[in-house]
Amino acid sequence: MLSLSAACVSSQSLAAGDQVVLQTPNQIVAAAPASDWVRIAPDDLLVMDLAPGANGKPRRVVIQLISEPFSQGWTGNIRKLAAARWYDGISVVRVQDNYVVQWGDPDGEVPGKAKPLPDGLQSMTEAEYEADASIANDPALKQKIKALEDLAAVMSQVSDMTPAEVLHGRDPYALVTGFEAGLPVASDGARIWPTHCYGSVGVGRNISPDTGTGAELYAVIGHAPRQLDRNIAVVGRVIAGIEHLSSLPRGTGELGFYETPAERTAILAVRMGKDVSDLPAYEYLSTASQSFAVYMDKRANRKDDFYIQPADGVDICNVPVPIRVAKRVGT
Amino acid sequence: MLSLSAACVSSQSLAAGDQVVLQTPNQIVAAAPASDWVRIAPDDLLVMDLAPGANGKPRRVVIQLISEPFSQGWTGNIRKLAAARWYDGISVVRVQDNYVVQWGDPDGEVPGKAKPLPDGLQSMTEAEYEADASIANDPALKQKIKALEDLAAVMSQVSDMTPAEVLHGRDPYALVTGFEAGLPVASDGARIWPTHCYGSVGVGRNISPDTGTGAELYAVIGHAPRQLDRNIAVVGRVIAGIEHLSSLPRGTGELGFYETPAERTAILAVRMGKDVSDLPAYEYLSTASQSFAVYMDKRANRKDDFYIQPADGVDICNVPVPIRVAKRVGT
Repeated sequence: MLSLSAACVSSQSLAAGDQVVLQTPNQIVAAAPASDWVRIAPDDLLVMDLAPGANGKPRRVVIQLISEPFSQGWTGNIRKLAAARWYDGISVVRVQDNYVVQWGDPDGEVPGKAKPLPDGLQSMTEAEYEADASIANDPALKQKIKALEDLAAVMSQVSDMTPAEVLHGRDPYALVTGFEAGLPVASDGARIWPTHCYGSVGVGRNISPDTGTGAELYAVIGHAPRQLDRNIAVVGRVIAGIEHLSSLPRGTGELGFYETPAERTAILAVRMGKDVSDLPAYEYLSTASQSFAVYMDKRANRKDDFYIQPADGVDICNVPVPIRVAKRVGT
Repeated sequence: MLSLSAACVSSQSLAAGDQVVLQTPNQIVAAAPASDWVRIAPDDLLVMDLAPGANGKPRRVVIQLISEPFSQGWTGNIRKLAAARWYDGISVVRVQDNYVVQWGDPDGEVPGKAKPLPDGLQSMTEAEYEADASIANDPALKQKIKALEDLAAVMSQVSDMTPAEVLHGRDPYALVTGFEAGLPVASDGARIWPTHCYGSVGVGRNISPDTGTGAELYAVIGHAPRQLDRNIAVVGRVIAGIEHLSSLPRGTGELGFYETPAERTAILAVRMGKDVSDLPAYEYLSTASQSFAVYMDKRANRKDDFYIQPADGVDICNVPVPIRVAKRVGT
């Protein structure tokens, strides 16, 4: 279910009658009822095992693939690549500080040496970086957009701000932002697209009109590079093990590429979650739940003991969707 | 000189007559004339040498301390602590993914074991997290704020948005944002404060009304935690060597604290730049320069070959102020 909304909610609508005062975002998450948690299907999880680090410990990264209507051509390719075990043996080739960790075939651009891709991969167009906004049917959002458009019309008569400056509202990059099935998205009211936040996973590509296959992927390890939105396919989000990527040594070549093969981190295996026997069940806090609305409000208005000045605002990438390992039932 | 401005500038005002088309932010920076670069006084640099990593190579972190009117009580303390060599021998005690790296005395909270602080440190009040906004004298900003206030008044008659929703403009956390002497700041028109962006350095503290001394510091290594603005003293920004902090192993204890002493990274020495003989001269691109205005526009509107959809917007923390090592004169 679509739950696109402004990233800042009014605290007036929130559980005023609660007996227990839950002050921090973490307390809200801990108190969320079981019904507010959504199990992520193992078939929507991509499990990447890096070669162990210097301490010999395993390094597993778990990625939640984005669901319809977003990037389905690319996630389809990723499923095929994983099924073909194509990713096994490739490497982390690039770590650029405050930007991305990227993995792929180190010889992918070398004629005659590139690892052949499996048959049946799709080619996507740039139009597929966005989806049709079914939000056009969401009454609350329609009302918000109508109010913004009315406002922009009036504004142009009383100030020298451009309509775009008003219409962007509280997000510098889009008219409205929100969450769809546990992942951050943005919209202009007609189209909707996934946003690049910390932990987002996208598809490496060459110069336009190339859109990439999914054989080369990256994860964001810095401040949200929202300029990439609608310019690259977002295919999911790291939900566990991001620290195994974000703490890798930075590459010293251009754009953070490693300069020698020895610097790369080998990828032992990439499997779909359904094919990994020891994978726990993961859940995200439903972004359509009341618990999430309160959590978002607490992120925007920190009033616990440590804070003296609530911000009264928060950006979409500063509201990470909570993830937990599901409690085992009956044990 | 103060140069607070909206984070998004109009491209109409930019160098339209240029013969050479400079498309990327990096090209703009590379083409900036020498007069647009500002030398950072060595006395405003804090140089922190970590113990070498596993590869035996030195790990130096260079921090530009913030200048007046911000956080001068804390930066004064930091200068005293460095002069007393108090920081030498302390450790990185906390690395929380997508948040902060923190360093200080590991025994700072242990009665009888805490390293004694030097005499003469100041205590600051919470009011000092902000400064008076001398921007009240900046005509361009006054005009912008007036336009926003007019807009908010009209808006409340034609929509159900609150004045605050409009007044925040394109930043979710503040009325206006901009740069002051090379560092990002935000303002409500009356007060002005430094913002928490990737690389920002702040002062660890206990629960309010404690404001910290500067003996415990942290650097941001994730998405901008703007909720900390006006809640903690920002004292500067890492301008070199951030990768030595951001790539450290994450702590597995609560809040990312290391659970065993062996996990900590030792800090060998912290000195003011004027006391480090082999330190190069650093410069930042003047945030009041035309080059910076064009650079910011290019960050907001990527139109180089890789991009197909310019964002037409950018947030203050997605415009890192360019830093370079100054060219040697006469050699």
